[in-house]
Amino acid sequence: MLEYYCHTRLFIHTMLLSLQLTNMDPFKDEFLLATEIVISAGQYVRSAAKSQSQASESKECYADLVTEYDQKVEKMLMSAISEKFADHKFIAEEMSADGNSAAFTDEPTWIIDPIDGTTNFVHGFPAFAISVGFFHLQEPVFGIVYDIPNDKMYSAVKGKGAFCNGRLMKCSPTTELQEALIATEYGSQREPNFLKFKIDTMAKIVEKCHGIRSLGCATLNIIQVAMGTADAYYEFGPHIWDFAAAHLIALEAGAVCSAPNGGKMDLCSRKLMVCSTKELRDQLTPLIDDYQLARDC
Amino acid sequence: MLEYYCHTRLFIHTMLLSLQLTNMDPFKDEFLLATEIVISAGQYVRSAAKSQSQASESKECYADLVTEYDQKVEKMLMSAISEKFADHKFIAEEMSADGNSAAFTDEPTWIIDPIDGTTNFVHGFPAFAISVGFFHLQEPVFGIVYDIPNDKMYSAVKGKGAFCNGRLMKCSPTTELQEALIATEYGSQREPNFLKFKIDTMAKIVEKCHGIRSLGCATLNIIQVAMGTADAYYEFGPHIWDFAAAHLIALEAGAVCSAPNGGKMDLCSRKLMVCSTKELRDQLTPLIDDYQLARDC
Repeated sequence: MLEYYCHTRLFIHTMLLSLQLTNMDPFKDEFLLATEIVISAGQYVRSAAKSQSQASESKECYADLVTEYDQKVEKMLMSAISEKFADHKFIAEEMSADGNSAAFTDEPTWIIDPIDGTTNFVHGFPAFAISVGFFHLQEPVFGIVYDIPNDKMYSAVKGKGAFCNGRLMKCSPTTELQEALIATEYGSQREPNFLKFKIDTMAKIVEKCHGIRSLGCATLNIIQVAMGTADAYYEFGPHIWDFAAAHLIALEAGAVCSAPNGGKMDLCSRKLMVCSTKELRDQLTPLIDDYQLARDC
Repeated sequence: MLEYYCHTRLFIHTMLLSLQLTNMDPFKDEFLLATEIVISAGQYVRSAAKSQSQASESKECYADLVTEYDQKVEKMLMSAISEKFADHKFIAEEMSADGNSAAFTDEPTWIIDPIDGTTNFVHGFPAFAISVGFFHLQEPVFGIVYDIPNDKMYSAVKGKGAFCNGRLMKCSPTTELQEALIATEYGSQREPNFLKFKIDTMAKIVEKCHGIRSLGCATLNIIQVAMGTADAYYEFGPHIWDFAAAHLIALEAGAVCSAPNGGKMDLCSRKLMVCSTKELRDQLTPLIDDYQLARDC
């Protein structure tokens, strides 16, 4: 327990130093709390992940899974936040599971995915993460992503850079699609038209780039671009809680965020493109048609 | 240096204990040497990977890369082996780069991929590995895979189980394709017909399973099946040096290896399927047509 406490304190100390946050910074308390509860929840999920093959239930279709841990972690995070910030709002994966669209207002709002990459978590495939984004006036203030199996904490405060375990992140300088590594996914929806659209798009892109990678976790795919270990990510289907924290980390690492067709980024639209450079975005967008999905908010 | 020496010794000690090798075991000396030189080469590659964006050259096409490290590591491994076992034969990636097929004989033969996942290595994407398989009478004796960015050593001696950092590996009990996570790749070849075949096959499979994952490293995809964190892997295009070590590790973890169409496994044919269970293989094979590729040997 002491070891865990020191671990958490050390993490937070390192992050504060990296981000050069001071008591004058607005939302510093929110950032501190978020870091502490995300690490704590991550430890909980990691110990669960060790007992292989989590029991899971299907949500909308057999490939869209949820476990008791998704639900428990979301409650754990939300109750810790509400205790300290009673009037803050939430947009979170499990509370939105009824399919109703969420209200995204100007109020201080926490956007939470308790476990992004639930299918990976169920299988033990080592790519799943907790994602917590904090917004005010509908603008991102900070984002925290905790890569649980690899014990890596990614964070960014707007205007203060992006950090992985306290080290500055910077996306790649790649400008040529022919030299780019692209992250994208088939996703968990199985409607034939939507799958066909995804496959046709991948087919157009793969023949022009170094390769396509699919980790099965939107958040960690975006993090690859922010780390400079992939050059672009695009996807249709994920939700605002998959994008909220990671897109800010990518922006702070120097990435360009837009709609997949090159238009203005819309976090509620369930589609996103994150590129290391504008040049790469301009080569990718002509290859990607638009596809309308039910909005999150 | 002392730390590195202890690290290596500890690794070998753990592996020997796990595998319960004795002095009576044939090829014990080969296994010991392989473990030691793979760890040593892995340290070398890891330090190189830290300096981002490796200079690379294209091989057959712009997406098929090779770095100076592939070539150096292969030479490093082969010269250490030849020094001790002068009459042993080799099949290795870079020595086969001229496109000539390799002679696979009954002699003791080392099958080596110095860096599987070179494109990932070039980009810093955290999935690349050293693969060393040892064969006698054309049968696998042992296989070693070192996942460099994640510092994980996978090994198997025929008939003695498969181990990850000294812990027993066991593939998943999944029997239903609808509950399965499948690993496969677009690969690095860009011939339109071959890409179309790959995409059409993925399209048939993705609509029936939990999801498709692409790490960009054949060896580590097979290792996921052996770890039970994915349920099946199939691919067209990789070479015998991508399969040689990992397929034995998967077999020893309980997996079923075959041709992607369900026929007998042929390590020289540049196609392979590895499934956690026979039931899964029998559901996958009707979805995968055959595709002829130039053989390795």
